[in-house]
Amino acid sequence: LKMETKNSLKKIASILNEGDNIFIFPHIMMDGDALGSSAALCRVLRSFGKRAWILIEDSVPDYLKFLDEDFCTYDDTLIRDPEICIAIDCSDLERLGKRGGIFANGRTSISIDHHATFEAFAHVNCNDSSFASSAEMVYELILEMNGPATAEVAEGLYTGIITDTGNFQYSNTTAMTLRRASALLDWGLDHQRLIVEIYQSMRPERVKLNGRALWEMELFSEGKGAIVSVTRSMLAETGAVMEETEGISEALRNIKGVEISVLLKEWEPKLTRVSLRAKTVGNVAHIARAFGGGGHVKAAGCTLEKSIEESKELLKAAIEEHIKGLTFQ
Amino acid sequence: LKMETKNSLKKIASILNEGDNIFIFPHIMMDGDALGSSAALCRVLRSFGKRAWILIEDSVPDYLKFLDEDFCTYDDTLIRDPEICIAIDCSDLERLGKRGGIFANGRTSISIDHHATFEAFAHVNCNDSSFASSAEMVYELILEMNGPATAEVAEGLYTGIITDTGNFQYSNTTAMTLRRASALLDWGLDHQRLIVEIYQSMRPERVKLNGRALWEMELFSEGKGAIVSVTRSMLAETGAVMEETEGISEALRNIKGVEISVLLKEWEPKLTRVSLRAKTVGNVAHIARAFGGGGHVKAAGCTLEKSIEESKELLKAAIEEHIKGLTFQ
Repeated sequence: LKMETKNSLKKIASILNEGDNIFIFPHIMMDGDALGSSAALCRVLRSFGKRAWILIEDSVPDYLKFLDEDFCTYDDTLIRDPEICIAIDCSDLERLGKRGGIFANGRTSISIDHHATFEAFAHVNCNDSSFASSAEMVYELILEMNGPATAEVAEGLYTGIITDTGNFQYSNTTAMTLRRASALLDWGLDHQRLIVEIYQSMRPERVKLNGRALWEMELFSEGKGAIVSVTRSMLAETGAVMEETEGISEALRNIKGVEISVLLKEWEPKLTRVSLRAKTVGNVAHIARAFGGGGHVKAAGCTLEKSIEESKELLKAAIEEHIKGLTFQ
Repeated sequence: LKMETKNSLKKIASILNEGDNIFIFPHIMMDGDALGSSAALCRVLRSFGKRAWILIEDSVPDYLKFLDEDFCTYDDTLIRDPEICIAIDCSDLERLGKRGGIFANGRTSISIDHHATFEAFAHVNCNDSSFASSAEMVYELILEMNGPATAEVAEGLYTGIITDTGNFQYSNTTAMTLRRASALLDWGLDHQRLIVEIYQSMRPERVKLNGRALWEMELFSEGKGAIVSVTRSMLAETGAVMEETEGISEALRNIKGVEISVLLKEWEPKLTRVSLRAKTVGNVAHIARAFGGGGHVKAAGCTLEKSIEESKELLKAAIEEHIKGLTFQ
């Protein structure tokens, strides 16, 4: 733990200890890390007798609903004139969406975040990208606060850790990540319940769609590229929705020799959304930018105002070109 | 760590320290835990200047070949009259296959294993089913031996841990499992290389077959049962082999509400192999035994001398009956 981060978390702990009315802000389109960390912190604050709520503006995704035990609210009047507003897992003010104004009204505002690109927007900012998840930062914060080391608190934190590290598979996983996860099991976490909630609660329609799409996957660039198309007729056929294509590009990346994988989603007849993944040396942010998109080096995306067939040809050509310029070990 | 296990590992460490010619025996049809643990131990023994080999009788599976850096041999004459023979991850003598005689010829024989059912067969036996993997026992042994804490040794041990715990998803995962995995990252393990070797090196034919099979999966028993058939014609169509169906029953188990999942493999026109998985309260060992098979409570199998269609009807009926008798929370 960096001394700067430790000091910053100590300071945040003492601010939270002093305050009694606290709003917590996960980012818009919340994921397991944003909501899990927020839920754990909310529970700890309430255990100290404080009034704490997670203020949200979009709905809690189905697979995370088990985390919300009356912590989340859309009602920004529940706490009037909040003493403390704390943003979790938000790399900049935009990630607060329409709640930016309420956040700014907090007498003290705090931000805890682990993203590599971070723009300070609170009175007290703690950002450290050596953490794989914000949940790990909140874990350290809870230790500083002498919060209760219970199974219930562990649940939110463990959710944040595994959803942000691909269950300890992504390259952001560190020895500290595993050590903190280990401590959470010591807190009595019901590990199996969590695994069932997060990984074993897929809709059957989604499994069928993924099967249908992967069956028709194509390799190109001598097996270094892999591409899959999901059309609107496949959705109709399987009963799945477009959001349920998540995970397909990862499945393609799991193929031996595949460096870059592409998922094409037929959003409308002339609108194709594209997810790109790289395995080792490829830079898909670079490819996505060429089509007006963006993202990370290993995970990026773009949108083309073209048919899925036209998009496929354009992407394949761009990726082929990119792969030619790569040096593989 | 149980005192009995600790003492037993101490004794094994002192025996290994004294010996110079050592054969290591992973079980037949080796998996990541058997080979990973064996490779790590072989490397440590050699680092002490000892002559050590892993004696195998069937081939190293493709996805584990990276572990064998000239450790494995079929040649039982490489060490004549071995001082020490050590079996790893073998729950009984049968798991040594045809090598049982050579094992018994060791002046001192040792067995290290973590299975719940264990029949002692060596001079010194260390069995402890509180460990999720044999790799974790070998990790503790290596600490007792003051073996080198290097990235290379960590590689085999981490492989054993993640392959036996479903990458920390199975219910055998403990706080100690995560703590040991964390220590292995501290040893300098190339975590990403390992993830690519183990999870991101699938044959494209396998991905297509899995897709094809899952697309046609069926739910039954009000969505508590899920069944998939893999026929010989599907193999021909996709170019995959029957061994590449591994993972399909797990994918079915990941469906919300599915308690028991079944994979039917058309081995021959009148020979069907069956893999069964349970999620929470089901007992698939019970179902498998009714068809002359066996296994664990949550993972079992059987073989029917019936067509795949006949087998399907029989299994569905038996599972429906079993599910009726279960109490869900």
